[in-house]
Amino acid sequence: MKTIKDSVHDHIEVEGVARELLDAPAVQRLRRIKQLGPAHLVYPSANHTRFEHSLGVYYLACEALDHLGIQGKRAERVRAAAILHDVGHCPYSHAIEEVVHRHTGKYHDDVHELLADNKVGEVLRDHGHAPDAIADLIAGEGRLGQLVAGELDVDRMDYLVRDAHHTGVPYGTIDHARLVRELTLVDDELVLAAGNVPTAESLLLARALMNPTVYNHHVTRIARGILQQATERLLEASDVTPERLRRMDDADLLVALRETPETAEFARRLSDRDLYKRAVWAEMGDVPEAVIDADHATLREFEADVAADAGVDPSEVIVEVMARPGMTESESRVVVNGEIRRLEEQSALVAALQHVQRAQWRLGVYAPREATDAVGHAAERVLGLETDGALVNEVRTPGTPTTLDEFGSPPDN
Amino acid sequence: MKTIKDSVHDHIEVEGVARELLDAPAVQRLRRIKQLGPAHLVYPSANHTRFEHSLGVYYLACEALDHLGIQGKRAERVRAAAILHDVGHCPYSHAIEEVVHRHTGKYHDDVHELLADNKVGEVLRDHGHAPDAIADLIAGEGRLGQLVAGELDVDRMDYLVRDAHHTGVPYGTIDHARLVRELTLVDDELVLAAGNVPTAESLLLARALMNPTVYNHHVTRIARGILQQATERLLEASDVTPERLRRMDDADLLVALRETPETAEFARRLSDRDLYKRAVWAEMGDVPEAVIDADHATLREFEADVAADAGVDPSEVIVEVMARPGMTESESRVVVNGEIRRLEEQSALVAALQHVQRAQWRLGVYAPREATDAVGHAAERVLGLETDGALVNEVRTPGTPTTLDEFGSPPDN
Amino acid sequence: MKTIKDSVHDHIEVEGVARELLDAPAVQRLRRIKQLGPAHLVYPSANHTRFEHSLGVYYLACEALDHLGIQGKRAERVRAAAILHDVGHCPYSHAIEEVVHRHTGKYHDDVHELLADNKVGEVLRDHGHAPDAIADLIAGEGRLGQLVAGELDVDRMDYLVRDAHHTGVPYGTIDHARLVRELTLVDDELVLAAGNVPTAESLLLARALMNPTVYNHHVTRIARGILQQATERLLEASDVTPERLRRMDDADLLVALRETPETAEFARRLSDRDLYKRAVWAEMGDVPEAVIDADHATLREFEADVAADAGVDPSEVIVEVMARPGMTESESRVVVNGEIRRLEEQSALVAALQHVQRAQWRLGVYAPREATDAVGHAAERVLGLETDGALVNEVRTPGTPTTLDEFGSPPDN
Amino acid sequence: MKTIKDSVHDHIEVEGVARELLDAPAVQRLRRIKQLGPAHLVYPSANHTRFEHSLGVYYLACEALDHLGIQGKRAERVRAAAILHDVGHCPYSHAIEEVVHRHTGKYHDDVHELLADNKVGEVLRDHGHAPDAIADLIAGEGRLGQLVAGELDVDRMDYLVRDAHHTGVPYGTIDHARLVRELTLVDDELVLAAGNVPTAESLLLARALMNPTVYNHHVTRIARGILQQATERLLEASDVTPERLRRMDDADLLVALRETPETAEFARRLSDRDLYKRAVWAEMGDVPEAVIDADHATLREFEADVAADAGVDPSEVIVEVMARPGMTESESRVVVNGEIRRLEEQSALVAALQHVQRAQWRLGVYAPREATDAVGHAAERVLGLETDGALVNEVRTPGTPTTLDEFGSPPDN
Repeated sequence: MKTIKDSVHDHIEVEGVARELLDAPAVQRLRRIKQLGPAHLVYPSANHTRFEHSLGVYYLACEALDHLGIQGKRAERVRAAAILHDVGHCPYSHAIEEVVHRHTGKYHDDVHELLADNKVGEVLRDHGHAPDAIADLIAGEGRLGQLVAGELDVDRMDYLVRDAHHTGVPYGTIDHARLVRELTLVDDELVLAAGNVPTAESLLLARALMNPTVYNHHVTRIARGILQQATERLLEASDVTPERLRRMDDADLLVALRETPETAEFARRLSDRDLYKRAVWAEMGDVPEAVIDADHATLREFEADVAADAGVDPSEVIVEVMARPGMTESESRVVVNGEIRRLEEQSALVAALQHVQRAQWRLGVYAPREATDAVGHAAERVLGLETDGALVNEVRTPGTPTTLDEFGSPPDN
Repeated sequence: MKTIKDSVHDHIEVEGVARELLDAPAVQRLRRIKQLGPAHLVYPSANHTRFEHSLGVYYLACEALDHLGIQGKRAERVRAAAILHDVGHCPYSHAIEEVVHRHTGKYHDDVHELLADNKVGEVLRDHGHAPDAIADLIAGEGRLGQLVAGELDVDRMDYLVRDAHHTGVPYGTIDHARLVRELTLVDDELVLAAGNVPTAESLLLARALMNPTVYNHHVTRIARGILQQATERLLEASDVTPERLRRMDDADLLVALRETPETAEFARRLSDRDLYKRAVWAEMGDVPEAVIDADHATLREFEADVAADAGVDPSEVIVEVMARPGMTESESRVVVNGEIRRLEEQSALVAALQHVQRAQWRLGVYAPREATDAVGHAAERVLGLETDGALVNEVRTPGTPTTLDEFGSPPDN
Repeated sequence: MKTIKDSVHDHIEVEGVARELLDAPAVQRLRRIKQLGPAHLVYPSANHTRFEHSLGVYYLACEALDHLGIQGKRAERVRAAAILHDVGHCPYSHAIEEVVHRHTGKYHDDVHELLADNKVGEVLRDHGHAPDAIADLIAGEGRLGQLVAGELDVDRMDYLVRDAHHTGVPYGTIDHARLVRELTLVDDELVLAAGNVPTAESLLLARALMNPTVYNHHVTRIARGILQQATERLLEASDVTPERLRRMDDADLLVALRETPETAEFARRLSDRDLYKRAVWAEMGDVPEAVIDADHATLREFEADVAADAGVDPSEVIVEVMARPGMTESESRVVVNGEIRRLEEQSALVAALQHVQRAQWRLGVYAPREATDAVGHAAERVLGLETDGALVNEVRTPGTPTTLDEFGSPPDN
Repeated sequence: MKTIKDSVHDHIEVEGVARELLDAPAVQRLRRIKQLGPAHLVYPSANHTRFEHSLGVYYLACEALDHLGIQGKRAERVRAAAILHDVGHCPYSHAIEEVVHRHTGKYHDDVHELLADNKVGEVLRDHGHAPDAIADLIAGEGRLGQLVAGELDVDRMDYLVRDAHHTGVPYGTIDHARLVRELTLVDDELVLAAGNVPTAESLLLARALMNPTVYNHHVTRIARGILQQATERLLEASDVTPERLRRMDDADLLVALRETPETAEFARRLSDRDLYKRAVWAEMGDVPEAVIDADHATLREFEADVAADAGVDPSEVIVEVMARPGMTESESRVVVNGEIRRLEEQSALVAALQHVQRAQWRLGVYAPREATDAVGHAAERVLGLETDGALVNEVRTPGTPTTLDEFGSPPDN
């Protein structure tokens, strides 16, 4: 047995198949993938990695399995899936995930082929596990897949507390020890035992508060936009293939961007934190449906049109659209008055979350500081925004507090 | 200048009038008043006091005044009010407050006469402050009174983090340092600067999660009920006057209950944690309006009737009704798009809080463990509950998870 | 199984005999005994109790037993001893312990008779445990007694981290989770496994730093002195017997002191924090051997003589002598190079601890603020101190930093 | 004013020259230099960077200046020095510092030329500061240089708490808030005010416990050894110059090692955490003086000789010698009895620290796992060790606890 010291869960004991998996290069690689991609440009302490997060997910999975009374091979599979659940992540985690998906069709949790061969597949087969069965769990399939990837999964529990610990933003500080204790299986479904409406609420509310403050902070979004644009150009201009990109680590990608002339300026901007600024920051009601639902190609055309209209280089305009508010968040189940209910039926707070997502939604158009004015006006015309000229940088007149910025733009902006 | 070490805010510097007020017996007395009354019977570490909380409120008031740029005598008055804001608390804080109010007409924040004389009044006058002006601030009056007692007051910021630290329940862990930084005065009104919808939400959501888990945990409510009943009897049976009661500390009251024959059994129950149990735990929809709105005298009659019906002594029945969900919670103001808006207009989460309060509301009827069955049925009849016999202890059949108990009854119940 | 939330160890699961013992009045009483006696007069947040500490010791004992692979009845006995190890404490813990010992011959860990009858004895016997066997463990006897009361006991591990959490002084923050993992039994002796010299050092150093800063802070010592003097007088002047005193809780003693005319002024001083001040604070080298080794009766005579000499009432002089530095601290054993060694042989830091204790030693003479001058000079003459008139309050001239006060007199003095 | 959120000190306010310096590429580069170099291979959460540490040092410097009452230009210079104190660090911090020093003659705190030009020099001159004056402060010169680089500097205070926060090892948790409050200038010398012997002790003891556990953990030392060997070869085999090396970030160096055939295997070992193991781990008493004092060239010859003797490739042997215990650690000054004394005179604990350093000293010889046996014996002969064949891997026989490993080899080894 090996004991590893973690800044969040203190001592984590790793043994058996999990211990051998830890030594696989595919898992060690996660030490070099930042958990929050470029969010450290907003929160300087947010340098934690997918590796320590994977250990944390493993730890919480062990605790949950213990409390559920699940042992033996079934438990071992879940523990292996916990250690491996993020091996499919590309450099800078979610920031580059969309780029990789467009070119390979794979999201980070689609790992059947990644588990099949090399050291990981070998270790799994040596311990009598079919790699595909583990990949299924990671995709959230099967009864226990919910524990790894579901509404009440240990993945979310770990990242919320870990991101809080490393950013310094306390909103993610949930009672994870209680959550794993209160999970129970009723009719093959993972639910929270009675008395846990606030426990379940706290998990979703923590995320609702971390979203604008950390995960979708506008500076994180801008840096993500630059990274995505730079990486698309890297794929065009260099011999880096999408498959190679997917298996790079953060250092590989950063150096590749630096060494490729077409992307070097993006790399410099990211390294020097000389980022674009907001030219537009528009609420959902002011954005035409067609823009909200535009696909990648259309957005790139918008960018070209805006650039032409504003008289700047196309590389100097980023149009970024968040996904429409999803429905999947609040389907956690909890026992109330002896029956299993969906949390959103039971909790007024959770039912409100969809409105929150809508209120937090923003269209962002970003450009170099000196071009925000021209790009903002051009974007208004090209995209047909109903923002009445109220682009972000216009309203911020001296003496008034910043305004179009109501969702969490606190530190280091 | 005096530096005091605090478990929450670390070093707190106290000087001037605040420092002298600290030495007044009326403030030192707060060392012997538990912040959460009998909640330590649920959370054994919750032994923190009104004294350390008052220091914390003073600390946050200083920080807020600093960020607001308020100095001089005006600031000194606010700091004095922060130190003194809880001197009106009676033993066991809110647990006994209603009893005291019924007999004296005073709530804990009605302190004009308490500040007028003795050492406190002397110190205030020595520094050129009218005690009444300080008492007004404590009552939330005036522009800066909002800082001491308002929707965004430093009182709430301190108690949420402090209660989290001492109970171990993380829900109260708010970003108080950001809150005090983002307070701003616009047109004489205390509001949060732009970009702070989530900051404001976090404060109200923290409270919404702490309510069922800590402040209104059913065991806290039961202990509070016993304390109240015992104290009413103490006033009848001993020479303790309401005014004397109000100025006792926790030790005085506990020993007085022990030494008075009519209340000694209540004192024993509290000391040995041999508490009553729930006989009824009913949702708002199952309780007649007349019961929800019953006054103290009517509730005491209900108790007598239930006791008679169940064949037990009247001292063995407690009927406890929470106040109707209030409206005052969500009137915090925050700057959005350049104008001041009420938080509840702006935040779907906060708008949902009233529904939450309603969902968390419970009527409790408590009795000694062996009498819960009889008392439960009697209460159902006497109070006209529509609970269909589903009293709390009936549904909790062996093998099933506890049920009528969906709001936070975790530890040590 | 019952889960209890603790501010230090988070969720603590209690079951079996431990769970039943928790409900015994003798254990519930510990909720009303402050862990650090009057130290909250220095550190206002230090209101934690022997009850939560006992739960913490139980938790760490469970962890250690788990790692040692000890199960069954032997383990159950240790767990019972952990829960019960402090039931012998009198009000205000160590502050009053000497008084009780002088009159009853009992220290707090001498609990054979306390475990024999009432609810505790009943529960133990019901589970097949001889109360005497548990009392032996609490006295540190037997192989596993070392775990409860020895150099590496879980008692010390818990109180260091708990006192750090509640005072805010970080020196007690040890790696308790590592300590319980590294305990091992070699030849029937409890030692730390190889690689743990720093682990063991950290435990002793934490205590060496907490001693002057918290446990022996001069204000704590003064308050303790007043409490002791007051309690001695209470035993003379009231019908409180030493045996009754031993079983009181903090509230009982405080109210008894208030209600007894001969001790009411002491109670007032403690309640209002209107404490005596240092008249003398002398290093060991300046104090005659005969004073260092004086017994209780001799010290009381010294006090009378000093009072007479200074022209004040005998109740206004307290002469307090710390015990001589002990030898027992550093006998922890740790495996080094394959053999068991005493930590003090191995660690230069630990070997230095006896010098430290000597350097931290102080004779204190305390008196009301206005009498410190007269009492200081009188004490110098009566006790034959070689302090050359350098009594504490003389040296503290304006403009110079405080001087005779080099060991940790920080907050709230 | 800009507010930055930090995981250790919460909100840090940056303004004036410090704020502009933050935006300089030379400072932004510190975001990509890990504070503890390869220690994250032992403590997976230790991914914090020199950038956040520099912010922390700036924060503590501001606090200390405030308490010392130092303002204006003098204070601004210290704040600039705090922000800039680590710009001279090379990739992986101290791990590569010796390599850079051998080739350039520069240590990380020799930054006169780095501050002279580019954005940093420009900002400093714009604010009326001579870059050389700031570089002098960073080198510890002048009265206030002690605050930036001295026995009681804010650098050490920040890194101890920060490393504790990120590794999870609590030994570094000092009372930094008290330290900065108690600093005082007496006769132009920075000392701790009276009453602070334990405060000063705690700082040095924290470091004494962090050394074996974190900073010199044997796995950190092995990884550092591999990095150093790889980097020396990189300088020989590629066109990377020492000056270029010094200004790389962690990503640059890692990718350069990967892309250079002569160093690719080292890069793989570091990336896959497939590290060398200890072949020798010898105490000072067993190592000849000539080996302890050997210079770099001699050590490289030893390595070649050991490799030849063991029949392995020279790249497979690393001989690493720690510096002799230094004397500079304990010269902090503290006011005791009205006079300034050196801490080591006053504190038995601190006087013991040199013995501790000696006891913690180890010679390490490392090799691939399968070669440790052969290399260990060869090293014993070549270096003339008196270890009697007791090499580290021989003693670790199954069933016994690990042995030659007594200093802190806990997690993830």
